[in-house]
Parts: sequence; C-alpha cells; structure tokens
Amino acid sequence: MTETPKNNPIKMICVFCGASPGRDPEYVEQAKELGLEMVRRGYGLVYGGGSYGLMGTLAQTVHQNGGRVVGIIPEALKKVERPELDGKPLEQVFGEEIVVPDMHTRKGLMNKMSDAFCALPGGYGTFEELLEVTTWSQLSIHTKPVMVFNMKGYYDHLLKFIQHGIDEKFIVDWSANVMVPGTTAKEVLDKMEVYEPPKSRFAL
Amino acid sequence: MTETPKNNPIKMICVFCGASPGRDPEYVEQAKELGLEMVRRGYGLVYGGGSYGLMGTLAQTVHQNGGRVVGIIPEALKKVERPELDGKPLEQVFGEEIVVPDMHTRKGLMNKMSDAFCALPGGYGTFEELLEVTTWSQLSIHTKPVMVFNMKGYYDHLLKFIQHGIDEKFIVDWSANVMVPGTTAKEVLDKMEVYEPPKSRFAL
Ligand SMILES: [Mg+2]
Repeated sequence: MTETPKNNPIKMICVFCGASPGRDPEYVEQAKELGLEMVRRGYGLVYGGGSYGLMGTLAQTVHQNGGRVVGIIPEALKKVERPELDGKPLEQVFGEEIVVPDMHTRKGLMNKMSDAFCALPGGYGTFEELLEVTTWSQLSIHTKPVMVFNMKGYYDHLLKFIQHGIDEKFIVDWSANVMVPGTTAKEVLDKMEVYEPPKSRFAL
Repeated sequence: MTETPKNNPIKMICVFCGASPGRDPEYVEQAKELGLEMVRRGYGLVYGGGSYGLMGTLAQTVHQNGGRVVGIIPEALKKVERPELDGKPLEQVFGEEIVVPDMHTRKGLMNKMSDAFCALPGGYGTFEELLEVTTWSQLSIHTKPVMVFNMKGYYDHLLKFIQHGIDEKFIVDWSANVMVPGTTAKEVLDKMEVYEPPKSRFAL
C-alpha cells in the first residue's frame, strides 16, 4: 500500500453507493478508476460491506490493489448483500469485514472509522446517507469533506434540487457548498484534499 | 375536532418540513391550508416541535383549530427551535410537547407515534427524513404512506432525480412509487387515504 502523503490527514474514505452496477458499464469503470486512484494516493475504504454492484467493484479494486478495505455489515444483511463466492473466503476478495448488530451501529461505525465521505451513484439508501452526513455537517456534528462523485451527471438533478432549495430560502446560503461534486475520480480526490467546511455553521 | 372517518385508519400524520417560511408567502399559505384540511378530516400532527417557519405555521394551524399536535424535540434544540413566545405557554400556541434526549430518540418516536409521513418544503434535514422513511419502506420496515406535498413544484427536481435513478437501474422499478406527490393539500390527503405500499419489497 502506498504511503499516505504526510500533508494529507485523510486516511479512510467512507463511500456510499449502490448495490447495483447501473445500466451503463461506464459506472463500473469509473468506480474501478476511483478505487485505483484511492490506492495510488494511499486512501483506504470504509463501506457498507456488500459484494454486489458498485460497492463490490470498488471494494475489490481497492483490496486487490493493496489498499485497506473495511466493510461494515449488519448480521441480518450478511446473507443478502455479502454471499459466499464459490468457497473463496470473502475477506480475500473484498477485504476486512466487521459484523454489527444493526443498521444504526453500522452507520455510527462507518462515520467513526472514516475521515471523509463520498457518494457514488446509488438508490434511496445512498441518497439518505449522503443527505444525513450533509445535515450533520450543517449542524457542526462533523467537518469532514462530503464529496459527490457525479459520474455521467448522475447527481445533476439532486444538485439542481439543492440549488432550488437555496433560491427558495429553505436552505441557508452558507451551506450550499457542504457537498462538493466532481465528475472524475481524480477531480473528486483533488477537491477532497483541499475541502474547506462551510465557515458559518449552526452550533448545537 | 372532527371525528376520524371510520374507514380510515390513519390518525396521526408525521410531517417533515422547514424551520424557514421560504421566499414566497405562498408556502406558508399552503402549509396553513394543509393544517386546516387535516383538522377537517380528523388527522393529528406529529412533528419536530419547532416554532419557526412552515413547522410553526402548520403546528399553530392544527392546534388552534382543535386538532391534536405532538411536537417531539431534543433537549439541546429546545432553546434554538422552540423559544419562549412573550411569556405565553408554548403548549397553548403549538400543542403538546415531548422533550427527548437526542435526535435519534426523536426520530424513533416520531415514527412510532404516526400512521403516515408527509414532507413539505424544507432543507437538508427534511430531505434526509423523507429519504429515510422511503428507504425504510423499500426495506419493509414499514408500509405507511410516504407523501410529498409538492407545493409550487418545490420537489420537481428531486422527483426527476429519482426517475433518473430508476432509468439508470440504481433504483428498482417497483419502488418508484414509494413516494407519492400531490400539489395541493386536498390532493395530498386524498392520495394518502388510498395509498398502497409497493407490492414487491425487499424483506430483511
Ligand atoms: Mg438517516
């Protein structure tokens, strides 16, 4: 594994993404590219522990290229999202596994073990996770980067929706840039490395 | 308070919405209209307990017209989101208050005390709550209606974003209609009363 650059305190990136590969093979290609770029820069991966879709691709890519991967999965989801792969020990394919009792513990631990968040294309669960860490940043619960890997413009409508919320005064201006989008793996990681949390914040 | 129709098991609606009134007074007007229509039909309100914005308007409207209101607020947020109003007891203005230790307990109780969910315009926190109950429905954790009061097309971009997720195969077809939008208070409640949870579901 590459040494983490000394001027860069980010070590583990928590990625939220789909258990589906998506309609266009380009999504999987770009997830692989992110995995390779993470390893090149010395970042490890914290994720939901699944074997399928973009999740599985990203975990395999990071792990098999020598990066650290920690998959955190609730007991009840293990059979569904992390099935046996023809007798091969899963940790050999996808990296370390931590089994937790429930979804709530999973989220808490994913948060605790990571230094930055990044969303890739996914479904409702992915959107909820992305918006949760965005809300937490706005409430000063954390100051970690919240990155959106906007591959193929997947997140364009969500970004427009947020801009509309700002225009309509339901979202305060200063929190417009909690989420930072990038369209390539390199752009996402470059922006993550210089991420500044919004200055004005709600303090709870 | 109007009698709840006997053929309608929904009694308490959990509403997620902004602590801001929005840029256009129309948002507040439509929140009032929802409050009045809820009282007419015998529904009570469960909400986050704040005094400001659409939250405060909706709670006041329901409470002052004889409907039941339960505001569930974490201790730490009480001062910020539910300040004293010139010496008048808040329960007189906004209805019952339940103080809970933290955000997590608030969410659990809002969920437990309600029979349906409805999102009004709001910010990151509102979006996260809406997507959380949508995710939970998809995971068969509940079968309650998930309504979106799409006043002034506020949620149009989010609905397009979700459709794009379906087109790109990150969201399964059958869960397209977990969220049901309506553009007026009457339409939202009419659709809520005939809501059918998606048939095909992930069973955890
Ligand atoms: Mg959540």
